[in-house]
Amino acid sequence: MSKLVIVGTVAFDAIETPFGKTDKILGGAATFIGLSASQFNVDSAIVSVVGNDFPQDYLDLLSNKNIDISGIEIVKDGKTFFWSGRYHYDMNTRDTLATELNVLADFNPVVPEAYKNADVVMLGNLHPLVQLSVLEQMDDSPKLTILDTMNFWMDNALEDLHKVIAKVDVLTINDEEARQLTDEYSLVVAARKIYDMGPKFVVIKKGEHGALLFHENEIFSAPALPLENVYDPTGAGDTFAGGFAGYLASTKDFSFNNMKTAIIYGSALASFCVEAFGTEQLQNVSEQALSLRLKQFRDLTTFNIELSE
Amino acid sequence: MSKLVIVGTVAFDAIETPFGKTDKILGGAATFIGLSASQFNVDSAIVSVVGNDFPQDYLDLLSNKNIDISGIEIVKDGKTFFWSGRYHYDMNTRDTLATELNVLADFNPVVPEAYKNADVVMLGNLHPLVQLSVLEQMDDSPKLTILDTMNFWMDNALEDLHKVIAKVDVLTINDEEARQLTDEYSLVVAARKIYDMGPKFVVIKKGEHGALLFHENEIFSAPALPLENVYDPTGAGDTFAGGFAGYLASTKDFSFNNMKTAIIYGSALASFCVEAFGTEQLQNVSEQALSLRLKQFRDLTTFNIELSE
Repeated sequence: MSKLVIVGTVAFDAIETPFGKTDKILGGAATFIGLSASQFNVDSAIVSVVGNDFPQDYLDLLSNKNIDISGIEIVKDGKTFFWSGRYHYDMNTRDTLATELNVLADFNPVVPEAYKNADVVMLGNLHPLVQLSVLEQMDDSPKLTILDTMNFWMDNALEDLHKVIAKVDVLTINDEEARQLTDEYSLVVAARKIYDMGPKFVVIKKGEHGALLFHENEIFSAPALPLENVYDPTGAGDTFAGGFAGYLASTKDFSFNNMKTAIIYGSALASFCVEAFGTEQLQNVSEQALSLRLKQFRDLTTFNIELSE
Repeated sequence: MSKLVIVGTVAFDAIETPFGKTDKILGGAATFIGLSASQFNVDSAIVSVVGNDFPQDYLDLLSNKNIDISGIEIVKDGKTFFWSGRYHYDMNTRDTLATELNVLADFNPVVPEAYKNADVVMLGNLHPLVQLSVLEQMDDSPKLTILDTMNFWMDNALEDLHKVIAKVDVLTINDEEARQLTDEYSLVVAARKIYDMGPKFVVIKKGEHGALLFHENEIFSAPALPLENVYDPTGAGDTFAGGFAGYLASTKDFSFNNMKTAIIYGSALASFCVEAFGTEQLQNVSEQALSLRLKQFRDLTTFNIELSE
């Protein structure tokens, strides 16, 4: 079975949307990535840090999904990273109400010995030097490395960010961030500029508008599933990345063609994520429900056109 | 051959984008719709109005595309409708610099006798009462009626807009407008509310993010083609609508399935439109170039997924 190493936050979130409000609930990039990847036949481990205020129940939830949590450091007398945000009516923009780094401030990631030969490394959104440290701990060169990041690091640690971008195979960012990183309006040109920075594959996440995958001169466009109810977009991008990484790790095929399928899996899992607060729905996705949703993606995108080849 | 009646503006535009600036050039919703529909085997007529400042060359350009212009009234001593706008860097938002209604202020559309039995009616963006008047002049019930409109009429003539929405088969609007019209965030729910207003089909235009087609419980999502150079988005929505209407009129198949194909044709034609200012590129789309672009849409959206049915 393929091994997948995931680095990212394991955290408390408190979320307000036009449709409701939560207390402190389970959140964090690595949490969403791990739960999403756990849908696939893959041996995954999370590398992260929490405080001793972090409930055993939450750790058990991850373990019960067969995620190795030996790489989650528990800091005695430390407090878990906490993020709180309020989404606007359009659900695409949000205000951060609180960010308490807590134990994350001094986080030194340690990849468990048994996972240093992992096939796939998924670097969830975190300080680029933390992501870089994880890469440097890997024994062999992993078959696939995927980096997720955001504009915050472009604004505050661009030089470090470029160091890690230079070392990965796939970069996943949103459209606005791709434009910021490259100073190009056209995403086609932006992707080409990103190839020059290192990654051979660029995934551009567009939320409710889907995702684009760029590789050499090829482009794939995946829609997002139009949904009746979107309760909470938190973690959707991480869930997408987790599905993408998990599918690729489980199939051990890192071709452009298989990445297209991986994008659809990631999109399908993200569609579950947003239909409830936090990880509530993502925890309980049956194989049958996932299969039904994949069929919806196929129906959504299929058209007939007669072309003279 | 199917007949297609197009109502909309025939106008002068002056456009500024981050990539350049034009003097007064040929513009107007009916112009873009007509040129786009002229790619198909269909007998189309434009119903519109211009002043005697409108160059004969522009009228000839339309005639040479086999568009009947007997329904374009030329007002002596009148001035042609003029719009001027400046696009922001994101190309999705723009400031209107000038709107001179001129002859459009007193426009009474007259459908030419020979087109009163048209199969398809495309109501381009205009005052809803002008659109309604065109519908009322049709002899028989057309096989398909398509309405394009915008938020301006929702803000200023909502009651009249509802009168014409109630009478058409297809409504095309953008995502923001769909939300405004229905007061619903979810486009799935918004489409259902629009069915209740009259149309059986709802097309939601999302610019660089593509388009959605809703009918009963079915949804189709079409991407936009990611482009290297976007010079001018003016007329892209009209070009899309013209390709959609032209393809449907030429095939005489108004099923959901055929509308999906029509959406791809409309999207492909719109991709040409935005690559140059005004109608410059749209005037010269060869069959071969269109065919190549349709193939790009197919490649862009094709993925393999194994599903147990």
